Amino acid sequence: MNKNYIIPNEWSILEEGFDNDNVKASESIFSIGNGAMGQRANFEEDYSGSTLQGSYIGGIYYPDKTRVGWWKNGYPEYFAKVLNAPNWIGIHIKINNTLLDLNTCKVVDFKRELNMKEGWLSRSFNAVLQTGEEINVTTKRFISVAFNEIGAIEYTINVVNFSGTIAYTPYIDAGIVNEDANYDEYFWKILEIYDGENAGCILSKTLKTEFLVATAMKVSFALNNKEIKLQQHTQKLEKKLDYTYQTKVSKGDTLTIFKYGTYVSSLNETPDNLVKKAFQNVEEAEKLGFHNLLETQKDAWQKIWDTSDIIIEGDVKAQQGIRFNIFQLNQTYMGTDARLNIGPKGFTGEKYGGSTYWDTEAYCIPFYMGTKDASVAKNLLLYRYNQLDKAIENAQKLGFTNGAALYPMVTMNGEECHNEWEITFEEIHRNGAMVYGIYNYVNYTQDFDYIPKYGLEVMIAIARFWYQRVNYSSVKNKYVILGVTGPNEYENNVNNNFYTNYLAKWCITYTVDCLNEVKHNYTDDFSRIIATTKLTAEEMYQWLNVADNMYLPYSEENQVYLQQEGFLDKEIIPVSQLPVSEKPINQKWSWDRILRSCYIKQADVLQGMFFFENKFSKEELERHFDFYEPITVHESSLSPCVHAILAASIDRTQKAYELYLRTARLDLDDYNHEVEEGCHITSMAGTWMSIVQGFGGMRVWDDGKLTFNPQIPKEWKSYSFKINFRGQIITVYKSQTTCKFYNEVGEEINLLEGNSKVK
Amino acid sequence: MNKNYIIPNEWSILEEGFDNDNVKASESIFSIGNGAMGQRANFEEDYSGSTLQGSYIGGIYYPDKTRVGWWKNGYPEYFAKVLNAPNWIGIHIKINNTLLDLNTCKVVDFKRELNMKEGWLSRSFNAVLQTGEEINVTTKRFISVAFNEIGAIEYTINVVNFSGTIAYTPYIDAGIVNEDANYDEYFWKILEIYDGENAGCILSKTLKTEFLVATAMKVSFALNNKEIKLQQHTQKLEKKLDYTYQTKVSKGDTLTIFKYGTYVSSLNETPDNLVKKAFQNVEEAEKLGFHNLLETQKDAWQKIWDTSDIIIEGDVKAQQGIRFNIFQLNQTYMGTDARLNIGPKGFTGEKYGGSTYWDTEAYCIPFYMGTKDASVAKNLLLYRYNQLDKAIENAQKLGFTNGAALYPMVTMNGEECHNEWEITFEEIHRNGAMVYGIYNYVNYTQDFDYIPKYGLEVMIAIARFWYQRVNYSSVKNKYVILGVTGPNEYENNVNNNFYTNYLAKWCITYTVDCLNEVKHNYTDDFSRIIATTKLTAEEMYQWLNVADNMYLPYSEENQVYLQQEGFLDKEIIPVSQLPVSEKPINQKWSWDRILRSCYIKQADVLQGMFFFENKFSKEELERHFDFYEPITVHESSLSPCVHAILAASIDRTQKAYELYLRTARLDLDDYNHEVEEGCHITSMAGTWMSIVQGFGGMRVWDDGKLTFNPQIPKEWKSYSFKINFRGQIITVYKSQTTCKFYNEVGEEINLLEGNSKVK
Repeated sequence: MNKNYIIPNEWSILEEGFDNDNVKASESIFSIGNGAMGQRANFEEDYSGSTLQGSYIGGIYYPDKTRVGWWKNGYPEYFAKVLNAPNWIGIHIKINNTLLDLNTCKVVDFKRELNMKEGWLSRSFNAVLQTGEEINVTTKRFISVAFNEIGAIEYTINVVNFSGTIAYTPYIDAGIVNEDANYDEYFWKILEIYDGENAGCILSKTLKTEFLVATAMKVSFALNNKEIKLQQHTQKLEKKLDYTYQTKVSKGDTLTIFKYGTYVSSLNETPDNLVKKAFQNVEEAEKLGFHNLLETQKDAWQKIWDTSDIIIEGDVKAQQGIRFNIFQLNQTYMGTDARLNIGPKGFTGEKYGGSTYWDTEAYCIPFYMGTKDASVAKNLLLYRYNQLDKAIENAQKLGFTNGAALYPMVTMNGEECHNEWEITFEEIHRNGAMVYGIYNYVNYTQDFDYIPKYGLEVMIAIARFWYQRVNYSSVKNKYVILGVTGPNEYENNVNNNFYTNYLAKWCITYTVDCLNEVKHNYTDDFSRIIATTKLTAEEMYQWLNVADNMYLPYSEENQVYLQQEGFLDKEIIPVSQLPVSEKPINQKWSWDRILRSCYIKQADVLQGMFFFENKFSKEELERHFDFYEPITVHESSLSPCVHAILAASIDRTQKAYELYLRTARLDLDDYNHEVEEGCHITSMAGTWMSIVQGFGGMRVWDDGKLTFNPQIPKEWKSYSFKINFRGQIITVYKSQTTCKFYNEVGEEINLLEGNSKVK
Repeated sequence: MNKNYIIPNEWSILEEGFDNDNVKASESIFSIGNGAMGQRANFEEDYSGSTLQGSYIGGIYYPDKTRVGWWKNGYPEYFAKVLNAPNWIGIHIKINNTLLDLNTCKVVDFKRELNMKEGWLSRSFNAVLQTGEEINVTTKRFISVAFNEIGAIEYTINVVNFSGTIAYTPYIDAGIVNEDANYDEYFWKILEIYDGENAGCILSKTLKTEFLVATAMKVSFALNNKEIKLQQHTQKLEKKLDYTYQTKVSKGDTLTIFKYGTYVSSLNETPDNLVKKAFQNVEEAEKLGFHNLLETQKDAWQKIWDTSDIIIEGDVKAQQGIRFNIFQLNQTYMGTDARLNIGPKGFTGEKYGGSTYWDTEAYCIPFYMGTKDASVAKNLLLYRYNQLDKAIENAQKLGFTNGAALYPMVTMNGEECHNEWEITFEEIHRNGAMVYGIYNYVNYTQDFDYIPKYGLEVMIAIARFWYQRVNYSSVKNKYVILGVTGPNEYENNVNNNFYTNYLAKWCITYTVDCLNEVKHNYTDDFSRIIATTKLTAEEMYQWLNVADNMYLPYSEENQVYLQQEGFLDKEIIPVSQLPVSEKPINQKWSWDRILRSCYIKQADVLQGMFFFENKFSKEELERHFDFYEPITVHESSLSPCVHAILAASIDRTQKAYELYLRTARLDLDDYNHEVEEGCHITSMAGTWMSIVQGFGGMRVWDDGKLTFNPQIPKEWKSYSFKINFRGQIITVYKSQTTCKFYNEVGEEINLLEGNSKVK
């Protein structure tokens, strides 16, 4: 059922042979980006077959009017969509006046490579046109990490069997649409089209949000590797600018076009400077030249790998998988801009919209903490801090008061933009992840200053939310949380979801602990916060009363916490007994049947045990894993990784390995039959955790100590990973026989006792 | 907050004075119809103000492609929409070349009357144009009950203060749209436009469903009450046909246009006969003439009132309310066509789409049984019998097998067309109402033959559904029904809803009882049914095991059945303590807040007690009423009536009266602030029940006995109602001091002992 055409390789994603059916999948998998912008691996030349065209700019979005069947009070007005941005990569190509189109000509020796070590995408193929001309094409393209507004293309045609003309028509097309537009609206307005000598620019504006974007291109040419000048024929259309260059060639000639592209947006430049800056960018790129730019690209990626690479020996598919995951995460978010975040599809597709889910706090922060400077994780936390006012507004819309905050399920600018009541209004556990993210960051970095400066205000607003969201149950003599959806979205509107209740209780306790710490050690900050929030001791006391008396559903018979009240009324039938024909249940079963079944989409009780593993005994973990994992269908991309980590925790190494493969190669092997729409970016951080926290057993709890507990599946000779721990790069090496730790300069260090003193 | 402009009157709905803000509300309230077609009270002349244009033909619908935010497996492809049909009532009017438009001229002495006794709508007003001309207008319009494809208009202008020209431009406009179209699509295709002498026709076709409709008009004129001929100027537009007639008039003249309209559809005629029949209809109508047609209309309505009128003395608002309800129900459904049903808005608006909800079985059948021949209720039951195959298909789509049926929540042709998972898939109690409708019909009519002939196959398919829908809970050692929505739609996806579980249990038991009866007394039918359904004794045994062991949530402390499991975890705060500013909660609160509150939209446990009142003691009824009514917000139109009946049952006459007024004048006083969209037709049957079953205390249970228990609120001098009981019309009269029963010819009969022997 899964796709199986990606060729295993340690450092590259490789495709050989041309198959129209794989074009859209490869467009996703071979996507390139630099954290600020990115694009699907669409062809430069025309392609009349099925394709999803996609170029994206971080932070540039459109508030697409909400579309629902039946309106519910509280729904947001819009769903923020990642916007397909003007296309600057396109080049129409004519050979003796025949358009090159891989959908209509014969394609031979097609090869595609995404070189993850150096950060570039290439293709090579021979094309035989219907008119008989044969050419050999080689292309290379990258989005510059060093100059993050710039991309570059080298496109070379070698003439195999004819003499005649080749016409290159590089263009900028601003007449692009989103496939997932709710009302088939056009999202962009073209303000002006500027042409120039081998360079041009379109200034366009997003409707409603009014982001301005200048998209520019610049081209140059070489014949048989010598620079040439060609005459430019300019065509300005309503939404498109193209330049046609034509030259005569003979058999054996190679004609190269270099095309440089840029986006300059009003996020980063003043409006009147956009076009000038865009022209400057492409002029400078052309001056530097493709090969020099490429060298800077290799250097930049080398720096990234220096602090984040994971090496797996003896299992090339696993090796390729983990590097693909690390590579895509870096392509999506570099951590330098606190306004950006990690969209679930990154720059590889337009589905889901929004840029920020609880995935960031629950899955991505550990990756960025582990592989980059602490400032990156801090930027992710600040993103939420900066949106606190919006989170308070979101909660007000749902009837909460007194500064209670509900962080959005899906957002671009802090406003909720999702519109399913059972998710938008009820999947409130996300609020807990905000606090967990802070806790995790402070434990890992020991940057406790973050709490008085920023974190505490967020935590107080969230504690207020939980306090208001519970109600007292007289029959239970406990506080209950009714009407929620847990991480397992195959249950909706349940009462007393263990994960949610546990997290709410913990949030309050941790917030009060932090308040006490700040009161004693950061008196000025404490005064400021108390003045701002008008928090009283009485209010804190009431919070604690709720936390102390929070109901947690538990089965005495099974000695497990129940995912929610009443869970044992279901028929518990392990997934192994489900006929293959009924899987995946999200495609085969109606929604009500899924809801009333016992099947779990992704870790729920186990998500809580993963977050707070130090609060549970190994026996408890085993009992819960054995109860819940067999009824988990892992139909969320976020599921296998958490189970892999827990499996490793309870020494089920081979189970962890099976789950690891599922998460690591989710997109490469297209487990969920949807990679065409884009890659599952946020779950890739889960893959990284499966190695580092799973097999590596790395933990840092609130005592600040760093511990490891490495184990290795039998399929691997060895593995090693690097982590950035409080500024120091530590390498962990584990083979079937040994386990070693190295510092930045390669000296072995002793960490077996596990502590934080390595700094 | 409610509107208060309808003038109380015993037999008419009256409006005096012109207020643009009431135009859309009055369009709904003054709607006219004859069961086969109907229309909102749109003006004949132009009106540039806010209006909802609506003409509807029973059974003609459009499958509008489903619109949702997030698709769930199992959703239907389309939502069947009641179609706005070609407008035949329109007449452009020009006075000295100025268009008559009540939105721009001065309107004086505006009066509107819906005469319910005789079945017509009239208006009269003086209009002073901006150019100074003043006219007096009187109009009368009706949709013929006797000739159910025909409608007629008399429109007279009296010239007040000028000499000049009046131009009448009667038209047919087939360029109409639905305001609630999901994708702003046009639903009709114009096939041909036919003109003729003072008569014309447009043949159009619904897209997708391909219903053909010929809409014709015919006009004639009178000057000062003498017939005149005027020259016709024909204009054929793409989707519209209009004829202009102009004449000179002097001060004091009256110029009348008679306009006859018809719809002939492919539901009733062969395609090649449609246009011919349409022309015939209007020619014949014109030959008969407006006044003769009006006489037949009065006679037809007199016949309807003869068997259905309710007289209330001493409370004109209550009197007007009940007649309005009876009148609208008859306008919506006459019971002569088993393909039709009772849409929630009837012919008064386009909202909700579909024509058939569980309202028919739960609310409307008693009204039609009580006021018409038994064949009418039987037609409503046959409607479902004829859709059994579709109900089985609906269930199959949700994973059910072995001939299990799930009747749709909303339908036109038997296919489910609603698209909210919590309703479509989970509000399955509707299936029980299908069986209850049969039970109710057989009890009332004693037509037990219906069961072997038709009913039993429906009941078996439904029993199979319930059997498959339960699951065994090992913790409860009972069968449970998980993931449902009860009649109270302010709870979604709950477990063990008392009403649903009770009804499921009862359905099985009643089905098995009927099977036994049929086995012994209808052996041929029994053999046929067993052969068709392949039902075995073993299967029935399994059903009964489920019924016998069905879990019903109960609170020992409160001695009440719980609406669903866990209900008592909620905070129980009576509606009386809710601030006015928070009501109605469906407009003021977000959906999640509504869901986790204790507030009940409409009778749920109490709906069950209403259906099966004979199974509960008076003390139990009181206890449940006192528990649930105070937390019921009655935000469904179907709520006050059931509570009124139960209040009467437990001798809370004044509470019943308060609830009665709310149901009887729901639309006239616009309690829910939405009458602009159309009237709440199905709840009007509940109003009728509030009198007959509520104050009248009429009951017929499975012993077939007719009993009454009349009581009267202190505000009324007396009331009387008629019921058709097994072919005999009985009148029940109740004053503050006496209670009497009369037979058809006005003789007093003794029914106080309550039995069925009156036949």
